[in-house]
Formats: sequence, C-alpha cells, structure tokens
Amino acid sequence: MNKPVVSEQTRLVLSELPGITIDGKSHEPKFRVLYRELRKAVLSGQLKSGTRLPSTRILARQLSISRNTVLNAFDQLIAEGYLETQTGAGTYVASKLPEHWSSAKPVNGKPITAIAPSIALSNYANTLENVSLRSDQGNQTFAVGVPDLKAFPHKIWNRISSQISPAGLPGLMGYDNPQGYTPLRESIADYVRTSRAVNCHSNQILITCGAQQALDICSRLLLNPQDTAAMEEPGYIGTRRALISTGANVELCPVDHQGLQLDFLDSLNSQPKLLYVTPAHQYPLGAMMPLERRLGLLNWATKNNCWLVEDDYDSEYHYQNRPIASLHSLATTEQVIYMGSFSKVLFPSLRLGYLVLPEPLVSIFTKARQEQSGLISAHSQAVTAEFMKQGHFSRHLRKMRLLYADKLDCLLTTCKQLEPWCTVHARGAGMHLALEFIPELSESEVSKELFVQGVLHSRLSSYFQGNEKMQGLVLGFANSSHQQIVDGVETIHQTIRKIHRR
Amino acid sequence: MNKPVVSEQTRLVLSELPGITIDGKSHEPKFRVLYRELRKAVLSGQLKSGTRLPSTRILARQLSISRNTVLNAFDQLIAEGYLETQTGAGTYVASKLPEHWSSAKPVNGKPITAIAPSIALSNYANTLENVSLRSDQGNQTFAVGVPDLKAFPHKIWNRISSQISPAGLPGLMGYDNPQGYTPLRESIADYVRTSRAVNCHSNQILITCGAQQALDICSRLLLNPQDTAAMEEPGYIGTRRALISTGANVELCPVDHQGLQLDFLDSLNSQPKLLYVTPAHQYPLGAMMPLERRLGLLNWATKNNCWLVEDDYDSEYHYQNRPIASLHSLATTEQVIYMGSFSKVLFPSLRLGYLVLPEPLVSIFTKARQEQSGLISAHSQAVTAEFMKQGHFSRHLRKMRLLYADKLDCLLTTCKQLEPWCTVHARGAGMHLALEFIPELSESEVSKELFVQGVLHSRLSSYFQGNEKMQGLVLGFANSSHQQIVDGVETIHQTIRKIHRR
Repeated sequence: MNKPVVSEQTRLVLSELPGITIDGKSHEPKFRVLYRELRKAVLSGQLKSGTRLPSTRILARQLSISRNTVLNAFDQLIAEGYLETQTGAGTYVASKLPEHWSSAKPVNGKPITAIAPSIALSNYANTLENVSLRSDQGNQTFAVGVPDLKAFPHKIWNRISSQISPAGLPGLMGYDNPQGYTPLRESIADYVRTSRAVNCHSNQILITCGAQQALDICSRLLLNPQDTAAMEEPGYIGTRRALISTGANVELCPVDHQGLQLDFLDSLNSQPKLLYVTPAHQYPLGAMMPLERRLGLLNWATKNNCWLVEDDYDSEYHYQNRPIASLHSLATTEQVIYMGSFSKVLFPSLRLGYLVLPEPLVSIFTKARQEQSGLISAHSQAVTAEFMKQGHFSRHLRKMRLLYADKLDCLLTTCKQLEPWCTVHARGAGMHLALEFIPELSESEVSKELFVQGVLHSRLSSYFQGNEKMQGLVLGFANSSHQQIVDGVETIHQTIRKIHRR
Repeated sequence: MNKPVVSEQTRLVLSELPGITIDGKSHEPKFRVLYRELRKAVLSGQLKSGTRLPSTRILARQLSISRNTVLNAFDQLIAEGYLETQTGAGTYVASKLPEHWSSAKPVNGKPITAIAPSIALSNYANTLENVSLRSDQGNQTFAVGVPDLKAFPHKIWNRISSQISPAGLPGLMGYDNPQGYTPLRESIADYVRTSRAVNCHSNQILITCGAQQALDICSRLLLNPQDTAAMEEPGYIGTRRALISTGANVELCPVDHQGLQLDFLDSLNSQPKLLYVTPAHQYPLGAMMPLERRLGLLNWATKNNCWLVEDDYDSEYHYQNRPIASLHSLATTEQVIYMGSFSKVLFPSLRLGYLVLPEPLVSIFTKARQEQSGLISAHSQAVTAEFMKQGHFSRHLRKMRLLYADKLDCLLTTCKQLEPWCTVHARGAGMHLALEFIPELSESEVSKELFVQGVLHSRLSSYFQGNEKMQGLVLGFANSSHQQIVDGVETIHQTIRKIHRR
C-alpha cells in the first residue's frame, strides 16, 4: 500500500489544512496547529495508513511556514505513533492504524455523539438517585442552614488570610498531617473542652471536609452491608443517605419533646451497631434531650455495644439557656463519636468539620479520610486556627448569638398570626423554626404557592422517612433580615388563608 | 430520700467547690465555673439524688459571689436536668439520676479509661489497615510526588488570594455549585482542550478534593462488590486501595516499554468493568503508550463495555517530546473518564483535582461528591481560577518544565555511576526516576541503609501487587536541588558498593 511518491490527493489535503496561516497573534504555537491538523487528518481518514508525506522542506514552502515548525510537528507525531519514518525513504502515515479509525469521527470538532457504554452503575450509585444538588440560595428569605454572611467579620478574616502564606509555614504547601493541621486541632480541642465539656485531647480530633464527610466516614468504617443503623425520625436526610450508602438497614426512632424516645430502641427489628443522634437541638424539631434521657441513652448504648454518633450541629446557638453539655461529656465508655462543623458558625464554603474520636479509632479514621480525599485545604485550616487563636471565633459566636436570638424573637412574634394553622417547634435554639400544620392544611399546596411567591423553605414532611409524616414548613432565619422575616411570614399568612379558605 | 433541710455534708461539699474564687482574670465566666463544679459533684456522686441545696442567696454569700451568678448556674443545671425545683420548696439534685451514675468517674478530670466497645469495624476498614499515613517530607532529597515548592510564584499567588474575599463573589461563602466553582471549571476545560486535546465542555468537569477523591468516587460509582476492576502492574497503590475498598476484585495487567500490555486483558480471570491506566507516563516505570496501543485499548474497551479511567497525573512534564495527546481525545465513545490534579503542578496542600466525565455520568458523580464531602473550599477554587485566567498557570508550567528537565538531566548524568547495578526507567518525563536493581542487589538492604543515611525514596517493589516484583528505588527529583541530587546519588552509590561487596 506504500506509495513511493507523494500523491496529488495528499498534496491537496495538505494544502487545505486550515489554521496554518493564522497570524502571529494566536496563543497557540504554529507547530501545535500543524500537529493538530495533521493528527485530525490521520484520524479522520483523510490521510490514510501508508500515505507518503512530502518532505519537511517542501511542506514548509507549500504552507509558508518555517521548516523548523514542520520538523517539530513531525517529531511529535512520530513520537505519538501517527507517522513513521524510514531512513532515506521519507515520512509516512503509520501503517498500523487500526482499520476502523479511518471512519472515526474527527476529534476536536463537534462533541462526540456516540452513546456511552451501557454499563450499570453500582448499588451505591442507586442510593444517590434522589439526592438533590445544592444551589446557592443563601440570599433568599428562610434558606435553611445558611448563616448570616453579612455579619461575618470579613475584614479580619481577609487580613489573617493574607498574612498566612502557604510558603510561610512548614507543611502548609506539601503533605501536612493527614489528621488535620495541628494548631487547628488544638484550637478545636480547647473550644469543645470549654464550651461543650467534651473531654478530649487534640490528638483525638480529625479534621474533615465538613459534616457530610464526617458522616460518610463514620458510616463506611462502622457499618457493613446488612448491618443495622438507627437514627431519629424525623431527622437529617444526609445522615440517612450516608448510612444506606454502605448497604446497611436504617431503623427509625421517633422523637418527642425530649428528643429520641428510648423505648423504641429495644423494639427495633434488629439491634443497631450505630445510632445517630442530635441531643443538643433535635434536627429539625428542636427538642433538647434532658439529662435523664441522655444517661439512659448512654446506658443503653453500653449494654448493647452500639456506637453513638452525636451531631452537635448547632449547639452554639441556644438562646434561652446556655448551650448544654454534650452527650460525649457524660460518657464513661469510649463509644461516643462527637461531630462538629464550621459551616454554620463561620461560613459553609469553608468546608471544615471535625470529629472527636475515641482513641482506638483515630488511626483508622485518619486513614479513611486520607484515602477518600487526601488532605484538606491547608490554607483554610491555618486561617481558621489563627482566627480562633486570636479570639475572633468566640467573639463572633457571642455576636451571632445575640443577633440570631433577636431574629428568632422577631420570627416568633410574627408567627403568632399563624397560630390557628400552625404549631411552632424548635423555638429555643438553632437557625431554623419548624411550623407544623393542622391536618386540614395541605403542605404541598402551601409549599408550591410559596415557591411561586419566592419564599424559600423546606417541607417539614421531607425530614420524615417513615409513613407517618408531619406536614408543615421549616424556615431558616439566620440569613434573613427583620424586614425579610416580617414580609416572608406575611406571605405565608396570606398563602395559608387563601388555601385554607378554598 | 428528700431531705427537708440542707445537710451539713452538703454545706461541706459546696464550701469545698474549687475554682469559684478564681480572680477576674479568668476567661471563663464565674457562673460557668460554678455550673461545671456542681455538675461534676452530681455526676461523681458527691451530691446525691434528692439532696437539697442551699438557697441561692445563702450559697452566694457562702461562696462570696453574686446571687445572679448562682441563679445563672442553677438555671442551666435545671434546664439540663441535673437539678429540680419545687415551688416554695427549694432546689434539689434531680431524683431521676440513674443509680450507676453515682459511681461514675468525674468528667473534665483525667481521660476516661474505660475500654472502647468491642465492636468490629467494617470490611472497608479492613482494607485500610496497611495504609501508611503521609507525613511532610517535602524538604528531603528524593521525596516522591512533591513539586519544587521554592520555585512556586508565592507572591503572585498571595496577591490573588488576598484580592479574593469570600464576601466579594456570589456563592463564594455559601453553598456554591456542587460540581465546582464555574470559572475554575471553565479554565480547566480550556486548559485540557488546548494542552491535552481533551474534547470537552466545562459542564463535563467535576472538581474534586485531589486525585484520591476522584479515584474513590469512580470506584464507588462504577463497581459493586465481586465486580472486577483492572489496573497496571506495577501501579499506583492508592488506586488499588480505592478499587478494593468497594469489595471488587482487582486484576493486574503487566506493563512493558509501551505501557499496559493489551494481550493480558483478554486472558484475565473475569472481565473488568473498569480499567485504570496511565498512558502518558506509566506510573512508576514511565512508559509512554504509543498510538497503536492506545487505539487498540479503546477498541478493546468498546468491545468489552469497560470504563477506562485515564489518570493523566503528570502529563504536563514531558521533556524530550511535547506532552502527547490524551487517550480521551482519541475515544469515539463516551467511556473514558479523564483524571487530572493540581497537586503536582501547583502544590499538594491545595487539594484540587478534577474529572472530565462523559455527560451521562456528570449528575450522579456530582451527587456522590456532594454527599461524600459537601463542597470544596471555594476560596482555593477561586484563587486557582484567577491564577489560570491571568496566564500564571501556563507560565508556571513552562518554567517548571525547564527547571525539571534540568534536574532530570543532572540526575540521569549522576546516575551513570550506578549503571553496573541499576537500569534506569521513566527517564523522559515526570517528577521521578525508577532504578531497577540487578538481581544480586537486595532492595531491602539498600533501602534500610539509605533511610539511616537520610536519603528518602520509595521501594520499587512497593508498586507491585503480584508475586513477581522488580527490586530497586523510585527517586523524586522535583523538590531536590542539584547539590542534593549529586549528594544523594553519591550516597546511594556508596551504599550499593558497600552492600554489594559483602
């Protein structure tokens, strides 16, 4: 098939190569353009296997480019196997290109349209199907889980951020301690010891990419397929997904005004290996678990050899009483794993959370975190550590506690007008309020209408996994101004009146 | 058991409460100290269930603190269930404290010494047992995988970093696009299109926390337990761990001087659903897969309905030829998943990597990433995007290419003296060199001695999973100076001579 001379057809193909005459302003070196076009011509079948190419000298003259440019492009194509040389016999399109490539679509042109392989995804992938992706709704009234970002001390944060150069501190650019930046772990240990009575040393702290990673790691390390895990009903949907992603069965424990109901633990279908609980401020109904029940829960866990994952997600924000001491602080055995996060107390995109681990678990958890996502942004960790060390963190918390208490007060006052239709839950703490509807009021109707009106919220029923669901709304108030709160509740009021009248 | 009057014993316990007389310089409010000490006394059994406490007025006088301080502490203890009040009848230690708590160890004292529950960890945890945690060895000669951090344009990076305030850009503080910061995805798409011929749109890019998370997500979404996955032998140990963490079987495909050997793919025990491959620069032996084999591999994958995960981990650094076009660019079906990382081209602690995904996989991969670690540090993403947009990224790459080529040249020259004992692999690209020993030389003896001498390296045998292992050393040269290279090789030379002479 090899031709001893360059065919007319080849000359034509080469003379029509586009892009070679691009002026010097192009960012792409000329040899790259020639390389790319020749490659495309080979892959598309315009230049077939065995085709002889003109000499570099002739091609350079033909295309009005320097011979070096042609040599560079040929070198690269030879290195990649598109072209072949035979000493003294010129340059050819490689003879070993598989046949079907002559009909392949050109690359670098339109997107490939061939279908993806029909390969089933994993069972884990199936558990994710109903996940909804987060979007940035932080500026809308009643967005749930978004702190007041306008009240954040940006200037201080930025000053610290610019003072911390990645090059300035050892380990900040390379591979630092996979358990987390040591000064940050020390600051966190100090903080949870004094404010949450968590009895721990900094070597028990594992820094994570936010709470979701912490949950994911706990689930994967502590649960096998077919194991049982338990959580509160209603509860945090992200927890359920983390638990079932391991193939474990998830049992639901109903809550009352004191949080998780212990009675149900003994009547579960199978005994859980892990129980997830939010004792400080049950999510989303807001119950604070009293001492007696906490002690009972610890007692039950010890008897039943069950891990307790205590998510202290917004313990910082208690307005009527001080934040109450953690479950972790009451434990006499090492079976409580304590979870905290900076997403709500600093800002969500910081992506930092932490676990306080029983010492025997530290090493394996650190390995899992390293294997799942390598290290965590060292700069974010260093800025946060310095922010805490300089006292800005506790100042910020104090300030936000007053601000949120004030906003909650405003929300509770304005919600009084909704009383005929709603019962208020979660009124003493946190960054959200839960409104439970009377049975006559349809959550889905109200919710649809509110989205039309531009009032954000979560549906209360969406926090329930079982068949019996409360109906109502969950409203985040932290990132809403007083005016937004008043206007938002007024819209809810009008909407309910309109729908209930029908 | 309730006593109508305050017992002498109680008075004694209370009068001995430590810490109340702390002077005003303490950071902790006095009521917190009193709260904590009373709580400890209850939990330790010093103050038993039903014990009557003195009135707040009397206790305040007794402890020389204000009555408000006592009231605050009592309020908190009542809210948490440690104390109870009966109107007009005083304050009591709660009657419902479970009996065993009277003998519980005090909290906030010494660490809890009770054993952790004897609960088996998951099968996934077992796969992690042999993981070694990374430590910061970036400054040592021949550290593998660490770029030249001294040559990084710190000033430019820091300037951009300080200009990007989290508050300044929408979405930078709250919950941004879970697929990754949009301008960064656009910059990456531009980059891989022009420099790697990856035919993609920015909506196919998923930002990850480094390459390890990318591998973990691919494995979890594409593999079920008992499925088969395949990878190169030798290869990257982190890949194997990600694959087996799903419960899949891992088949090994030997490599030759052209990379992965296709012949072996058809003789595997079971057909793989996913094949991990490093065609640009086989890790760690350095073969560049030529065109013919790439086309054969794609052909095989199409016929066998197998996902190809192309890890282009150091394609940026080719010194003899330009970086060759990616496998992804040659595919006519959407079954190649392309992986890139900034750890080696910027700095490891940045923790940013990316996947270029077939469009049908984008949504489920984004969900998995969100569920596993929420979002990624928005600030890091924004700084990287701006660094790329301003052209610093390509300038940095060009500079590093020259610098590394020079270092590699130095290393190759100095390694000539090792020739009687070593064959050099991976000599044309990347950030490391692999030295294969002659059979008479013991890798473990040389390696042990080198660690004693302070010369870092990886053992070549550690990249092999099967029984047949090459023996030798893998040397990272990117973060070593010329002097370190010369001295390091001299130490290796002396060590080999010493050991081989024995």
